[in-house]
Amino acid sequence: MKLDILTIGDELLIGQTLNTNAQWIAVEMTRIGFEVRQQLTISDDEQIIFDSVDEALKNSDVVLITGGLGPTKDDLTLPVLNKFFGGELIENKEVYKDIERLILSRGFKMNQNNKNQALVSSACTPLRNEHGTAPGLWFEKEGKVVVAMPGVPYEMKAMLSDTVIPQLKEVYELPEIIHHMVYTQGLPESMLAELLEDWENSLPATIKLAYLPSPGRVKLRLSSIGLDRNKLQQDINFKVEELKKIIPDNIYSENEEDIQRVIGDLLRSKKLTVSTAESCTGGYIAHLITEIAGSSDYYLGSILSYANEVKINQLGVNADDIKKYGAVSQQVVKQMALGVKNNLKTDYALATSGIAGPTGGSDAKPVGTVWIAVATPNGVISEKFVFGKQRDINIQRASIAALGMLRREIK
Amino acid sequence: MKLDILTIGDELLIGQTLNTNAQWIAVEMTRIGFEVRQQLTISDDEQIIFDSVDEALKNSDVVLITGGLGPTKDDLTLPVLNKFFGGELIENKEVYKDIERLILSRGFKMNQNNKNQALVSSACTPLRNEHGTAPGLWFEKEGKVVVAMPGVPYEMKAMLSDTVIPQLKEVYELPEIIHHMVYTQGLPESMLAELLEDWENSLPATIKLAYLPSPGRVKLRLSSIGLDRNKLQQDINFKVEELKKIIPDNIYSENEEDIQRVIGDLLRSKKLTVSTAESCTGGYIAHLITEIAGSSDYYLGSILSYANEVKINQLGVNADDIKKYGAVSQQVVKQMALGVKNNLKTDYALATSGIAGPTGGSDAKPVGTVWIAVATPNGVISEKFVFGKQRDINIQRASIAALGMLRREIK
Repeated sequence: MKLDILTIGDELLIGQTLNTNAQWIAVEMTRIGFEVRQQLTISDDEQIIFDSVDEALKNSDVVLITGGLGPTKDDLTLPVLNKFFGGELIENKEVYKDIERLILSRGFKMNQNNKNQALVSSACTPLRNEHGTAPGLWFEKEGKVVVAMPGVPYEMKAMLSDTVIPQLKEVYELPEIIHHMVYTQGLPESMLAELLEDWENSLPATIKLAYLPSPGRVKLRLSSIGLDRNKLQQDINFKVEELKKIIPDNIYSENEEDIQRVIGDLLRSKKLTVSTAESCTGGYIAHLITEIAGSSDYYLGSILSYANEVKINQLGVNADDIKKYGAVSQQVVKQMALGVKNNLKTDYALATSGIAGPTGGSDAKPVGTVWIAVATPNGVISEKFVFGKQRDINIQRASIAALGMLRREIK
Repeated sequence: MKLDILTIGDELLIGQTLNTNAQWIAVEMTRIGFEVRQQLTISDDEQIIFDSVDEALKNSDVVLITGGLGPTKDDLTLPVLNKFFGGELIENKEVYKDIERLILSRGFKMNQNNKNQALVSSACTPLRNEHGTAPGLWFEKEGKVVVAMPGVPYEMKAMLSDTVIPQLKEVYELPEIIHHMVYTQGLPESMLAELLEDWENSLPATIKLAYLPSPGRVKLRLSSIGLDRNKLQQDINFKVEELKKIIPDNIYSENEEDIQRVIGDLLRSKKLTVSTAESCTGGYIAHLITEIAGSSDYYLGSILSYANEVKINQLGVNADDIKKYGAVSQQVVKQMALGVKNNLKTDYALATSGIAGPTGGSDAKPVGTVWIAVATPNGVISEKFVFGKQRDINIQRASIAALGMLRREIK
């Protein structure tokens, strides 16, 4: 089954917004067995949208569109698709109620723009938007499907996952595709590739391997396509068992991308708690942990000590040690971890202190130097890392490294 | 002058790699006055590449291509373009020397793959690649230009900036394009559109307006194209001044997207400091603030009180008030803000307490309810918000709302 992805919006076209929607849709649709023929980004222009939909439908079975469904004048996707499929714009009562409920819950009143969003093409089935006012639009014609979704990423993602993909699976018979993920942490891609070289060469031709790196982590994806799902899964399982023997400490999950969720499950099952004392990571570890619903079961809080006075007064770090060794040092980071563990009375504690950059480095401690400590019921361990020059990436890599250390200690 | 951007590669098509090249090219080319007609991503397939180039050249003056120039079998851009422009593949001595120099400098010897990369189409002018082995290809035909560049981002960027753009400026006389941004916070898109309706209708035909929403914010983009840059800027400035009178409190910048950077600049210039006491936002406000290099000048730290005991012991919140009013209440959030302001000795402090979801809500306090307080040198203000059901979006919206309140107080 062939798929065209059509993303509409001048902000994408001129590069003001990075087109993460097209990528996300491509990943999700590839996963369920669609072949992406092309991704096209075009302007908010009536004729161009019309022609692009026409062209896409000639070549693909399904066209997924995002953008141009908002309430303002430059949003043209609905009128163009309505014209393309020969419908009429009529008010949809259920859509109206959904919009009204959303607007009222936010403490606003329905205005004309909101009301206009309840106008839907008679040629389509509207799709509910749980998170915004613009409904999705599902058109079918001669066995082909065109779906328009909002451009706001979280609205689009919820709609694609919850509604569009399940409905597409009903319309089309899709081949079996298995993507088996193995999530690793603590080894850079090049080192991992070297360690896995023999194993990679031993993979059967039916299994494709991809390395998908992100700061601090590398996702390994084993993909297999065929007709017999059981056989595909068996072959993959066999090779994954071999893999586990090669890098036992670096694999943190086979189904969960977020290492903080793996840690959360571990802590909850063992009835343990954790706190954090962040300096250079600036709250990012806390943010990762609390992104997870229910994290209040095991995460009590953090003392974010950006200034030295906060390290001294709130965490009990020895002021002389800061003078003697510097804030970015093993001595200080260990005291930070122990300080927050004692103050917040948790079983474990994480601390970071480093130079995120882009300035502030020295010859002895270049930008990217980060000390990380984990306080455990049995003491405190620490490790020094030297990352790169880019501030945002350093923050991410240090946070993931810290969570990796914590996971190994809890396990 | 119209431009098509053509990015080639299966890794882009299936979403394995985020297409940052297309965005970067779009930004750079828009800046110099090109109008991006479309961005198209296609597979490493001979016929598809051929047809796409053909189609692009029918509609645009310039086609910029990235990808498919490497030394392996799936790299087809060179042979396809050579065929399209009716050339022959011949070895280019200068390109050969460049490749040899690069390979030797890396401590390797020239292999057959490297030698093959010196084969260039006789129909094009090769462009030097300072950072890699694949030269760029510059084709011209009937006043139109097709340029193929490597897909590796830093190789492509250097080639576009250093060679392609200067050469394009010699070939074409380019119009002036102005994009003027206005960053707003605190009004949802539909309300903003209502408030701005009359003003929007009063815009001259030469100025296009776009609403670009993200959680908690709406970006307004005014675009104008013409020959007289001063006149274009004057017209836009005039309308922006009108806009400022309509929503004076909601505009936080005209050149800076990150509200935390605007706040940072304000604090630094006034020599003021801030701290945070986050509950439901879980460190995300701290992360936003500390993303900015140099934030340690004005940001001292945070007491992240996820657990009630931390609110009581570290922030001095009255335990009886938590019992009586609940942790998500005006009384508690105000005490949190004052507590962290006193403990960390800052001029301002921000506090949040809410129900991020997806569970934990009640009839009186549904999921999405968030109390935010700002402690200032003159007292403490607070406000209640009711956001949606999605945890991650609630965290983002609450964080931006909190920063918006802080900005208004500092100003």
